[in-house]
Amino acid sequence: MSQKRAGEFTLIDLFLSQFPRARVPVGPGDDCAVLAPSKGAQCITTDAVVEDVHFTRAWFTPEDIGHKALAVNLSDLASMGAVPRWFVCALALPRDFPRRALLGIARGMSALARVHGIALVGGNFTSARELSITLTAAGELSPGTAPLTRAGGRPGDVLYVSGTLGDARLGLSHLQQGRRRSPAILRQKRPEPRIALGRLGARFASAALDISDGLAQDLGHLCAASGVGAELELESLPLSPSVRAALGPEGALAGGEDYELLLAVPPGRTSTFERACLRAEEPITRVGRLTEGPVGRIRGARGQGLRLPAGFDHFQGGGRIDRSGREG
Amino acid sequence: MSQKRAGEFTLIDLFLSQFPRARVPVGPGDDCAVLAPSKGAQCITTDAVVEDVHFTRAWFTPEDIGHKALAVNLSDLASMGAVPRWFVCALALPRDFPRRALLGIARGMSALARVHGIALVGGNFTSARELSITLTAAGELSPGTAPLTRAGGRPGDVLYVSGTLGDARLGLSHLQQGRRRSPAILRQKRPEPRIALGRLGARFASAALDISDGLAQDLGHLCAASGVGAELELESLPLSPSVRAALGPEGALAGGEDYELLLAVPPGRTSTFERACLRAEEPITRVGRLTEGPVGRIRGARGQGLRLPAGFDHFQGGGRIDRSGREG
Repeated sequence: MSQKRAGEFTLIDLFLSQFPRARVPVGPGDDCAVLAPSKGAQCITTDAVVEDVHFTRAWFTPEDIGHKALAVNLSDLASMGAVPRWFVCALALPRDFPRRALLGIARGMSALARVHGIALVGGNFTSARELSITLTAAGELSPGTAPLTRAGGRPGDVLYVSGTLGDARLGLSHLQQGRRRSPAILRQKRPEPRIALGRLGARFASAALDISDGLAQDLGHLCAASGVGAELELESLPLSPSVRAALGPEGALAGGEDYELLLAVPPGRTSTFERACLRAEEPITRVGRLTEGPVGRIRGARGQGLRLPAGFDHFQGGGRIDRSGREG
Repeated sequence: MSQKRAGEFTLIDLFLSQFPRARVPVGPGDDCAVLAPSKGAQCITTDAVVEDVHFTRAWFTPEDIGHKALAVNLSDLASMGAVPRWFVCALALPRDFPRRALLGIARGMSALARVHGIALVGGNFTSARELSITLTAAGELSPGTAPLTRAGGRPGDVLYVSGTLGDARLGLSHLQQGRRRSPAILRQKRPEPRIALGRLGARFASAALDISDGLAQDLGHLCAASGVGAELELESLPLSPSVRAALGPEGALAGGEDYELLLAVPPGRTSTFERACLRAEEPITRVGRLTEGPVGRIRGARGQGLRLPAGFDHFQGGGRIDRSGREG
């Protein structure tokens, strides 16, 4: 935390008070944090959550907001197979932002940080019209381990997704309908990054990414980066009963903000991968396979064309919480 | 750059097109950038510039905004004596933000990045009500070198500042008066981070920080962190003729956003430090010394009390560009 401005002192102290002291050569309070050299390669991601785009203060508690801001970054680390190490937190706060709410954000973020052993090493406060939280997070790969990128998929690789799909989207609908509690709402507010599965996946998978914009769109990205096509078994998609009833498989394909992982595993490694996931209690489902192409083309498992939804795109007004709190 | 959403693709491509390709194992385009392990300790900083707080679109060109967003982060690296290595860029853009302006921001940022050899390795776009740019930048210390923190100052250490003080504040006044060009306005819009001086200072100084909130306030931070007091020679402050005429030494003490360095150098090293700065053509001026205390107390060189301005504090409405474009 850059402790530069008198008015920031107490805000910073308040925020930091909710985190354990980072065990680094220089922590928050100087112009930079200073970290010992990393042993393995470093994975770096930066992701922001913005009021009325990724959350609303009416529907999210401060703790939810703090959790989600860190979770979306951890999910990026998970998708590379990295071990979370450190993060910095830049907060833009409206001038009248309540101290109690700031404390809540810190608490929600800190609780998730503890779970994954990631240290807050610095940050920044600025004033702004709307609340936004921009985090930069770093993870480390075990020395000698290759990162799990989007680009390593090969034709024939089997596709897996973790958990269930579409729940966060359904949760958003529930909120819009005036509901305040449901398992789906919890998935929307408190995504759980799949750190352990990512680390496990790094030993088996050829490619991976986290599903933040819906499987259809994110699989398209994996295919494009890997130069392959894909076949999806719609009937195999892991859906909770409520998502199956409310959205169906096609709706779940466009379900953004699930933060589950999509992994491509070469056929020779699928049985050991599945056994390892079973032992680790990581829920995965086989949903299709990569094909020769055409590149980026996603077909049904019986070769039929799929009418794929566009996925989430908040620049196009598609699917996220918008200014009015309605789905765009 | 997380290339997740269709609407972001072209914006990201546009932005990245202005930067040289980062020479890292995995660059922009995947969930994380992947960087080789660092050899020396890493210095990490995060800092944001927000529309109508740190700049206005009426007074700053997009190139100015891009420059300033990176410069304020590089200045933090400079103050630690670090060599700039990589940064990530999170942009929050109003929905109607012109592509031409985005390109201008990238150009201004890229030009400064090239000067200091720092690579853009990733980033993020979100929509927002107001334009803001949050950067996280990393520098590396030469292996075995200690970072230059705020906490190493000892009584008797001689205080130096680089360049001249108060110009950025005067530049803001000029803008407010309707002027569009002056040397001071250039200092406000295009601060030049003192990277080379920071690296040189790391060999001699006991403590340092960058002057972002005015010498009075920033010296106070150095004193507090080092557990010392200080004496300032007001008549020695390096002021440009226009700052001397318009603000005087007291006004310059509160001149935020200069991004000059304040260094404390033990008395036994001052002559070699001064000679090294002369050879390197780094302009420094001796402005006082650290004292036993009381801790944080800053007095005049003849022991007189100084009426010190509070410095910049945008949470208290003090001194930065505010919502109405007037100084608070």
